Parts: sequence; structure tokens; C-alpha cells
Amino acid sequence: MAMVCLSDFEAYAKKYLPKMAWDYFAAGADDCITRDENILAYKRIRFRPRMLRDVSVMDIRTKILGSEISFPVGIAPTGFHQLAWPDGEKSTARAARAMNTCYIASTYSTSALEEISAAAPDGLRWFQLYIHRNRAVPQQLVQRAEALGFQALVLSVDLAYTGKRRDDVRNGFRLPPHMKLKNLEGAFEVCKTSPGDPSVSWNDIYWLRSLTRLPIIIKGILTREDAELAVRHGVQGIIVSNHGGRQLDEVPATIDALVEVVEAVRGRVEVYVDGGIRKGSDVLKALALGAKCVFIGRPALWGLAYKGEEGLQDVLRILQDEFRLSMALAGCANISEIGPHLVQFSKL
Amino acid sequence: MAMVCLSDFEAYAKKYLPKMAWDYFAAGADDCITRDENILAYKRIRFRPRMLRDVSVMDIRTKILGSEISFPVGIAPTGFHQLAWPDGEKSTARAARAMNTCYIASTYSTSALEEISAAAPDGLRWFQLYIHRNRAVPQQLVQRAEALGFQALVLSVDLAYTGKRRDDVRNGFRLPPHMKLKNLEGAFEVCKTSPGDPSVSWNDIYWLRSLTRLPIIIKGILTREDAELAVRHGVQGIIVSNHGGRQLDEVPATIDALVEVVEAVRGRVEVYVDGGIRKGSDVLKALALGAKCVFIGRPALWGLAYKGEEGLQDVLRILQDEFRLSMALAGCANISEIGPHLVQFSKL
Amino acid sequence: MAMVCLSDFEAYAKKYLPKMAWDYFAAGADDCITRDENILAYKRIRFRPRMLRDVSVMDIRTKILGSEISFPVGIAPTGFHQLAWPDGEKSTARAARAMNTCYIASTYSTSALEEISAAAPDGLRWFQLYIHRNRAVPQQLVQRAEALGFQALVLSVDLAYTGKRRDDVRNGFRLPPHMKLKNLEGAFEVCKTSPGDPSVSWNDIYWLRSLTRLPIIIKGILTREDAELAVRHGVQGIIVSNHGGRQLDEVPATIDALVEVVEAVRGRVEVYVDGGIRKGSDVLKALALGAKCVFIGRPALWGLAYKGEEGLQDVLRILQDEFRLSMALAGCANISEIGPHLVQFSKL
Amino acid sequence: MAMVCLSDFEAYAKKYLPKMAWDYFAAGADDCITRDENILAYKRIRFRPRMLRDVSVMDIRTKILGSEISFPVGIAPTGFHQLAWPDGEKSTARAARAMNTCYIASTYSTSALEEISAAAPDGLRWFQLYIHRNRAVPQQLVQRAEALGFQALVLSVDLAYTGKRRDDVRNGFRLPPHMKLKNLEGAFEVCKTSPGDPSVSWNDIYWLRSLTRLPIIIKGILTREDAELAVRHGVQGIIVSNHGGRQLDEVPATIDALVEVVEAVRGRVEVYVDGGIRKGSDVLKALALGAKCVFIGRPALWGLAYKGEEGLQDVLRILQDEFRLSMALAGCANISEIGPHLVQFSKL
Repeated sequence: MAMVCLSDFEAYAKKYLPKMAWDYFAAGADDCITRDENILAYKRIRFRPRMLRDVSVMDIRTKILGSEISFPVGIAPTGFHQLAWPDGEKSTARAARAMNTCYIASTYSTSALEEISAAAPDGLRWFQLYIHRNRAVPQQLVQRAEALGFQALVLSVDLAYTGKRRDDVRNGFRLPPHMKLKNLEGAFEVCKTSPGDPSVSWNDIYWLRSLTRLPIIIKGILTREDAELAVRHGVQGIIVSNHGGRQLDEVPATIDALVEVVEAVRGRVEVYVDGGIRKGSDVLKALALGAKCVFIGRPALWGLAYKGEEGLQDVLRILQDEFRLSMALAGCANISEIGPHLVQFSKL
Repeated sequence: MAMVCLSDFEAYAKKYLPKMAWDYFAAGADDCITRDENILAYKRIRFRPRMLRDVSVMDIRTKILGSEISFPVGIAPTGFHQLAWPDGEKSTARAARAMNTCYIASTYSTSALEEISAAAPDGLRWFQLYIHRNRAVPQQLVQRAEALGFQALVLSVDLAYTGKRRDDVRNGFRLPPHMKLKNLEGAFEVCKTSPGDPSVSWNDIYWLRSLTRLPIIIKGILTREDAELAVRHGVQGIIVSNHGGRQLDEVPATIDALVEVVEAVRGRVEVYVDGGIRKGSDVLKALALGAKCVFIGRPALWGLAYKGEEGLQDVLRILQDEFRLSMALAGCANISEIGPHLVQFSKL
Repeated sequence: MAMVCLSDFEAYAKKYLPKMAWDYFAAGADDCITRDENILAYKRIRFRPRMLRDVSVMDIRTKILGSEISFPVGIAPTGFHQLAWPDGEKSTARAARAMNTCYIASTYSTSALEEISAAAPDGLRWFQLYIHRNRAVPQQLVQRAEALGFQALVLSVDLAYTGKRRDDVRNGFRLPPHMKLKNLEGAFEVCKTSPGDPSVSWNDIYWLRSLTRLPIIIKGILTREDAELAVRHGVQGIIVSNHGGRQLDEVPATIDALVEVVEAVRGRVEVYVDGGIRKGSDVLKALALGAKCVFIGRPALWGLAYKGEEGLQDVLRILQDEFRLSMALAGCANISEIGPHLVQFSKL
Repeated sequence: MAMVCLSDFEAYAKKYLPKMAWDYFAAGADDCITRDENILAYKRIRFRPRMLRDVSVMDIRTKILGSEISFPVGIAPTGFHQLAWPDGEKSTARAARAMNTCYIASTYSTSALEEISAAAPDGLRWFQLYIHRNRAVPQQLVQRAEALGFQALVLSVDLAYTGKRRDDVRNGFRLPPHMKLKNLEGAFEVCKTSPGDPSVSWNDIYWLRSLTRLPIIIKGILTREDAELAVRHGVQGIIVSNHGGRQLDEVPATIDALVEVVEAVRGRVEVYVDGGIRKGSDVLKALALGAKCVFIGRPALWGLAYKGEEGLQDVLRILQDEFRLSMALAGCANISEIGPHLVQFSKL
């Protein structure tokens, strides 16, 4: 089977992963409306391509928080990579490094931060965290991440409680016994069943700020009101995200929410987006609408499920090639030529 | 089979109920467009969830007509509960009481008002009625209900004639001989085949008013004009309802009609809604658009069909859990924080 | 099989009619988009029903061109009724008479005008015609119709050439040898293969006017411009029609075109509509949008195919019952209470 | 099997062509959204037909760049006609000549320009080209085309790189060894794998202009901005095209893009359109929206696949008959009567 586009990896993963693992990765909350909308919303956006522009020399590199990446696609934080591939997050880190892009490691990794760091010491790595009820947990994690060269903190704010994913309930999903939440061993066992603290509020951003010199990126913003609050509370970036449709169902597709967040932010901080990216032209649309970079979740897991580090590189390379081709056919030779003039919302 | 969401109960009921009973409960008028629209319309509404609000202490209680209920979901009046479970409305009354919510008993019950009342003496019960051509019928029913501690009257106004439900016609639907319309025994036999009086008009509200000190709620309003008339005729509440799509087909979904009714009422009386509620987030949407409480019809019957009182409690508990989770994930810790800012109508 | 709604008759006809006959009746032009849109467009209209109005005494009679009919549904002109039932148009005429409504007999009948007239001498009959290249043909037909008591002429203007109905081409459709176009025997043989004259223009209305004292109704108007021209040329009525989607495909559904025609006509002449009527509530929608009466084409043929005169009466009776019930549930006790306030176009 | 409409030819070609050839012709880029939208967009346009106009004498001839053609449908440039029929482009040229219309021969023909010219010496032929990196290639091709009596040059500008057509990648599509790119033999072998030069820009139009006295038509414009630039750079015509959805996916359907291009051009040059034409009424819609002529791509290949020259004539004849009939039924007797008043965009 030739791996030509990301759907090929999805089909492979669906076929070869254990059902419980596939279901966990594929899950959306409730009726999965937002999970699916994330994809459909991209298909309602049309390009306005320009012709006869010199696109012989293509430059698709960009910078996020000052670090150059080979193209504007990073790896979103997702948990439990060992469910997809034995080497888990270590493979993910190596693939991201090999493709010269950014990997946001999840607190809920099946490899420890230290292992991830060792797997790709000079890779661009960010660390995703929740603020646990026991503040010692995030405090220690932040310090470890900073010490290990992670270059930014990504605070997830959309998981006060875990969304209702029906298949996980039916399957009685739990991590197989030989896999461990390596970042939460020992004293932090308690965190394993309840990731966040529902009492967390905006003031906790100041507390987090006080712990570290790393940039703070807030993940899970969907409204202009919260975007404005995020900027006012001094974050360095916003990831427009609905957690892959796994938390509150029937929130807007991220590409739709991106428009209002970008408008509210007015360039004061960088805005990223995840959810629904399935081909290179989706990346181009997100950038045209104001995202600095996109992050992929499930497609990265499909790549891992296919061939570990190598499979994830395949996924990234396909996205990269498709993105470059889309840019060229739309008449853009480099990232700075991408703008809102490039897209319009379809009438249907 | 795990009962994870309301669709699981629907599937169970469809599988195990006699076809004639299932068809009767499932029936919609004509092409069933409104019956299905009631559900689809909810799916076109999107949340605008707010992050980083303290939702560690959730309070989902509310009050309807001054009585506290554990969460804003009551049991809508539907007929013939013995078709779903041998103990019929007595089970329904007990389940509502156990979950500390409101049960609107139907005139067309297969248990007598007296039995319903005895099954849950201290439960919050309202009584639904039609104004029959022979005014002695509603007059006697009102007096019985008031004496038995029912706390409000719900007047159905959308059944001047019975809608055309094709499957019922094909099945030649009729109540099995061992079931009785217990509220209409003896002198009231005549009412069994024609529930309402097509000559009833707004002035009859005054007549009903004169019979009782109970609050009067009008059920079946779909337009701003009628909402205004209801308020002017002194009712205490309005249930926006299209009778589950069983009367005039191709009227608007109730969640769409709710918007215009709430706008017209301007807070002068409480507004409720029924029809199409299938998950906790639907309740949240209805409240965001101005409903004080929602009522469920068919899902309650599926719960009864599954395990009687216990099954209906399961249904209510799932809705309650889902509603609480939706609220929290949308950033609301109590009912008063729910408002129109929480939702938007989808472009599609 | 119980005949509960019009779809039941359609299913019967599809099952029992010879394929060539079924295909001919069912045919639409090209991709059949307009044929199907005629039906779908009704489903996008929503009622705004009013409650608590006295609908105990229902009066659904109306008048068209001064003649009373039992309810606002007549029989549209369609050809070749013997393809559906041996007695053909004679059965149609009898059924229309029995139900006290109007039958528009087609020039392309398999019974002669004289036979149709004899079958229902005191029935309300209109006669449909084309203006043939040889003006002697329409002239003679008009004189016969007038002499036989037909009370109006319905001039079809949308058949300059016959539309392309793919199935008819594939089937090599032709009338079975034992059926005759009885109105075009003898000298008029030539007309059988080319119904109209593509050179006909508005001035021919004056010529037709000069031949007869009967009211002239123009059938096939879809635009405000042509509606205005029709009024100016002195017609007494307009049937908004797209020939059941059998002529130019991808013209608007008739219920959509009705709105602009009614607006243009401003009450100066009566406006009727055909196409897509499948249940009583469709009739109510057409009247709410300004039609004085609707005409049914294919459903009448299905009724004939089911049981001839009796089957067509069944179809009409079902429509009548459904129409009366819809009116009552919408809060209208008679035709004069129907108006545009009763409907709204659905957002979807 | 009767060939009644273009879909019949499509079904035939799908059944009888080798899979690799069918896939190549059918291919769209990525998800094939634009390929399919080209067709769907036509179905959202409704006619506003006018009645009682004299359409007895129909004249459907038109002129493009001063040359008369029998009806406003030409053959779009597509490659590799020998994949469809042994005689390849020679058959195409003969069929176009026989039907008295225009054939745009592709650079990527499997017959040489000289052969095409010899097959239909007095036919109206245009020549399509790319500007290759090695400018000697287009220069020589232009000179050959001009010498051979081709009457215009069609410059494709939407193929800076080849679009990603997944099936072609999976199939490892390549021309069978016995077929040759006859126009690119010998010194031009190099061009076979990379048709265009991604550095081409608007200034190259001036260079092309300097080579020839033939009119230059630019093919692949989709925006008003590029339409304005095309006019300013002195082209004689614009073909609104998205390369049959084979280049950048999710650009607008050509019939939608046509509207904005026609508006921008304001009659200064002729505008044509290709993509999605499947029946005569599509041609009428394109003309109503301002196209001077349309060009068909895949349908021409299906005709070739069916019966070579004869099959393509069948396709053109069907389109011609359907176009004439549509015009007549819409009330237009000649091309000059077609205008924007004839169409409206559907609400759905």
C-alpha cells in the first residue's frame, strides 16, 4: 500500500492498532460533531490563487517564538504514544528533530521528559502541562522541563474535567499495565486520574509566570473574550484548539474560531491552531487566516502507528511537500506572501 | 450493553418494545420533518466556551415556579406509560421524585391521578389537561389534581384535532384491552376518543383560571404572537412545544421557536421547552437561549422501557451528569452564569 | 396495503404500471433537478401555527373564477390517462365531479372532449390547449370545448419544443397502438408529434381571445416579467407551473416562483400553482403564499393507476382531509384566514 | 446502450478504458473537491425562462476572436488523446472540424502539430502551450503553430508545478511506451517531465507577444486581480479554468469564478470558461453569466473513447441539441438574447 496522503496512514492505523487504542485516539466527545467539524470546516474555505508569480525558489521556513522550523507544522501534545509505537514519545521527538520542527511533549507521555529530551537533545521541544490541584506537581514539571531545554510551556486550559468520550466509556479504556505515565511516577500518582484542577483561573497564569522564565503559551482558547484575557495576562502565544473535539462537543471548528481570535489578538502575540489538519493546503488556509503555525495531533499518531519515527517523518514530509506545492500553485514563494487575500469562505 | 448515552436507551426500546408501542411513541405527524428537526436544530447551535473560570464547585439546581429541582430537566407529559413498563406512570412518578425533579402527569395516563400521587406523595408533580367539549371533565380533573397536591396545571393547546401519524393509522393503533385511561373512567368514557375541544379559545383560559388557584402553564406555543397573548391572559408559564412533532408537521423546531418566544415574553413569565433534548449539552443550549427548564418526552419512555423506575433514573442521571459536565466545560459553575453569550447559531 | 398518504399511491403505481408508462409519468427533463425541487422546496417552508382559535367548524370550500369547489385542489392537465387506467380521462372527470372540484382536461387526452364532457356533464371542467402551427386546430378545439360546457381555457406556454426526458428517449416511448389521441383524429393527425408552435408569442393571446368568450388562463409562467405581461394581455388567471419539471430543467420550484408571481400580479388576476403537491399541508403553504388553488398532476395519475375513478377519489379525499387538518392545527377555520403570516422560509 | 446524454459516454469510458487511462483523465488534485464542485456549482444556478417568444427560427452560431463556430462549445486542451483512441488528436481535430467548432490542441498531444493540422487543414484550431524553462521550446512551438495555421495561442498559467493527483501517484502513471509526446521529440525530450517554468511571470507575456502575431489567450485565471492584469498585459482572451480541478484543489468552481472575472474584464477581451460542462443548459448558464464560449475537456475524451472521431461528434451533437433546446425553452432565439437576466443563484 502506497502512502500517498494522510488518509492512507489513518486507514493503516485503524486496521492495525488494537481497537481500544484506535478508539482512544479517534474519540471525540459525545456525538463527535466538533471532531468532524474540525475537518469539514477546512473544506468550506476556497483559495483565490494568483498566477504568473515567480515561484521557482520556494522558502517555506518560518519562526515560532523566534525559533526557525522547516515549515509551519509542529506536533501537538497528545498522550500515550506507546499505544501507537513501542518507543512512544522518543520516536516522536526524533522524528520532529529530523524534520526540523517543533514537538510539544504532553504531560501524559508514556516516556519521561528526560527520555524525550535525551532522544532529541537539540530538537525544538515545548512542554504541555495542566495545573494540578497539588501545585507541587506542575511546579516540579516546569522546573524539569526548563532544565531539560524545553523552550516553552503550553498550558492546556480546556480540561477542567475530562470530556465524555462514549467509546472510551464502553471500552473501559485504561493504559495497558506495562505502560506508565512516566512524568507522574512516585509522589504524583494521584494526578493520573484527574489531570487538571477545575478551580484554576486566570490568576494562576501569574503563578505559573512566577515559576519560570520560559514563554507561556495557552492552549484551548476559542473566543475573542478569552483571547483578549490571555494577552492581558501576559502569555506569549495562543493555540486555538478544541482538544481535537474531545472535550466540549459542538464548539466551533478551530479554523472558524481562529478568525475571531486572530482579530482580537491584533498581532500582539503569536496565534497557532490545531485540529482538522489533513493536507498541506489546510496549513496554507490556517496561515492565510492568521495562524503562525499549525500543530497536528491524530495524524502524528497514525504516522507513529505506521512505522514509528520513520512513519511520522513520512507524515510530516507529505504535509511539507503538499504545503509547498499548495503555496506555489496559489502564487506564494515564501511565508510572508501568505495573507487573507488568499482565501474566501465558500457559499456552501 | 452499557447504557452510556440516551441513544442506547432508544436502541433498547426499539428492540424490545412491541412494534405497535414503539411506533406510537416514535410517531411524528406526516413526513416526521418537525420530529426530526427538533433534534437537528440543536446540532446547528455552537457553544462559545470560556476557559479558566473556577468550576470546582458546581451547582446545577434551579427553581421552577418557586420549587427547587435538582437540575433543569423535568418529565414532559406523555400518554400510556404502561405501554413501556407495567407499573406505568407510578414508576415515572417515583423516578422523578428520586431524582428530585418535576413530573408532568398526562390526562392520558394509564394510572389514575390518585395512584400517581400516592406513588410519590412529596414529589413535585404538575398535571397536564385538555379542555374537553364537556366542561365537566376538565373541571373535575382540575379539582382532583389540586386536591392531590399537584402544583400546577399544564394546558395543552395544540391538539384541537389529533395529528396524522401514518404508522399509527397503518397499525390501527389502540390501547391493549387491559390498559385503561384511568383518569377518564365512568362518566368520562366519551373523552377517550377525542381529547380536546376544537372550539376552545383564549377566553377559556379565564374559565380555567376561575376553577383553581394553581398556576396555569400553557403548552404548545410556537409564535411570538401567541406568547404575547398567553402573557396577557395571565398564565404563569409557557412550554414551547410542538408536541414532539406529532401534531402539525413542518412547524419550527422548538429550540428555534424558543428564541422568538423568549424575546416576546421579556421575562414576564417562565418559559420552558420540550422536544429534541438528547444530551446534557442540549439542556445547556436551551437555558442559554432563555428556557428556565426543559422537559423530556420520548427519552423518559425509553428509560421506562429499559427498567421502569430505575431505567428512568438512569436516563435522568446521565442527562444530569452530561449537563453538569457541559456547564463546567463551558465555564459556568451555576445556572445564573448561563446566558446567550454562551451560544451562536452555526453558519451551516 | 393501506393507502394512508399519497406516497402509498406512488409506490403502488410504480409497482403495477408497465415500466414505459411509469417512466413517462415520472419523467423529468435532463437531470430531473426541477422535478425533485418542486417537492423539496415545500419542505423548506415552515408553519407559524396559531393556537386557541375556534376551529370547531371548518369550511375549506373556495371559488375559482367564480365557481365553487369543495377544497382548493384541482386536477392538472396531463396526457394519456389510459396509460394509467382503461377508462382514462372519463374516470378522471367522474372522480373530479364526485369530489366537486375542477378537472383541466388535456388536449393530449386519450378520450375525446365529447366523452369527457359526457362522463361528467355537470362537473367543473376546464380545457387545456396549445396553439398549433395550423391555427385551425386550436380554433376547432376551442369551439368544441366551449360548446361542451368547459368553463375556461388553459393555454400552455412552456412547450415550444418538448423537453428532453432521457428515460422516454431510452424507452422509445410511444402510445400503445390501441390508444388514440382522440381530440386530434382525422385532419389533425399532424399535431400528434409536435404539440405547439414555437413561433407563438404574446400577440396570439389576442387571437385566442377573439375566438371565445371563455376565460383564458395561462399556464407555465415562472417570472414576474411574464406575469406582468400576462395580466396586460388580459388573461383571467395564471398557473405557475414548470410542467412538472418536464420541460426546461433547473428552473425554480413552482412554490418558489409563486412568491414572485403573486407579488407581481398584485391581485389583478387569480394565481394558481402546480407541481410538487404531495400532502394537504403543501396546499396550505401554497395558499398562504398567495395561490387561489393548486392542481395535482402525477398524484392524480397514481390514483387512477390504483383504482381508476375510485382511486383518484381516494387521493383527493386524503388531500382534503390532510388539508382540513393542517388548516385547523394552524388555527384557520376557513380559507379567508389563510395568509402569509402563516409561513416562513426555513433557514436551511 | 443508447447514448442519450454525456453521462452515458462517461459510463462507457469508465467501463472500457484501461484503469490507468481512466484514472488519469478522471483525476483531480488531492480530495477532488474542485473537480466535483465544477459540476455541482452549475446545479445551484436556476433559469428564469421567458415564455411566448418566437423561437421558431433558432440561430446558435457565435464568433470567437472573429471566427464563426456552429455553437459556443469548443474542445479544451487535454493531453494524451491516444490513451482514449488510437488515432488520438487527429480524430479530435476531424470531429471538431466536422462540427464546425474550435479545437485547442495541447502541447502534450500524442500527435504532432503537423499531423493535427493535416487532419483538419481548414478547421479552426488554437494551440495551447506552456513557457518552458528553455525558452527555445515555446519559441519553436509558437512558430510551428503559426506556420500551420493555428489561429490563436492559449497560454496555460496554472501549472508552475503539477498538481497532486493521488490515483496517478498510486498507479505510477506514465504514458505507454508506444505513445510519444510528438511535439517534444528530439531536442525537447527534457520538457516531457516538467511542463512549465515556475519562474514565469507577467513579463513573459510581453516576450511571447514579441514572438508572434497570433492572438494570445491566457488560460487558468480565477480572480478579478489576475483578470485585470491579463487585460493590462494585452491578451486577447481569458479562459477561466481551474485545470479541471487537477492543480490546486479547493479553488472555486469555474462558473463561480467566471462571474468575478467577467465583472473585472468589463468586455475589454473575450472571456471563456471550461470545467464542469455536462449538458447543453450548462452552456446556456455560462453564456448568461458572460462567457463567450465554453470548452469541454473530459466529455471530449469520453467521446473519443466511445468511437473516436464519430464518438466525439456524438458528444458535440448532443450538447448542441441540448443547448439549442435550452435556449428555446428559456425564450432565446439567438445568442444575443442571452444575458444575466436569464439566471439566478439558488438559495441552496
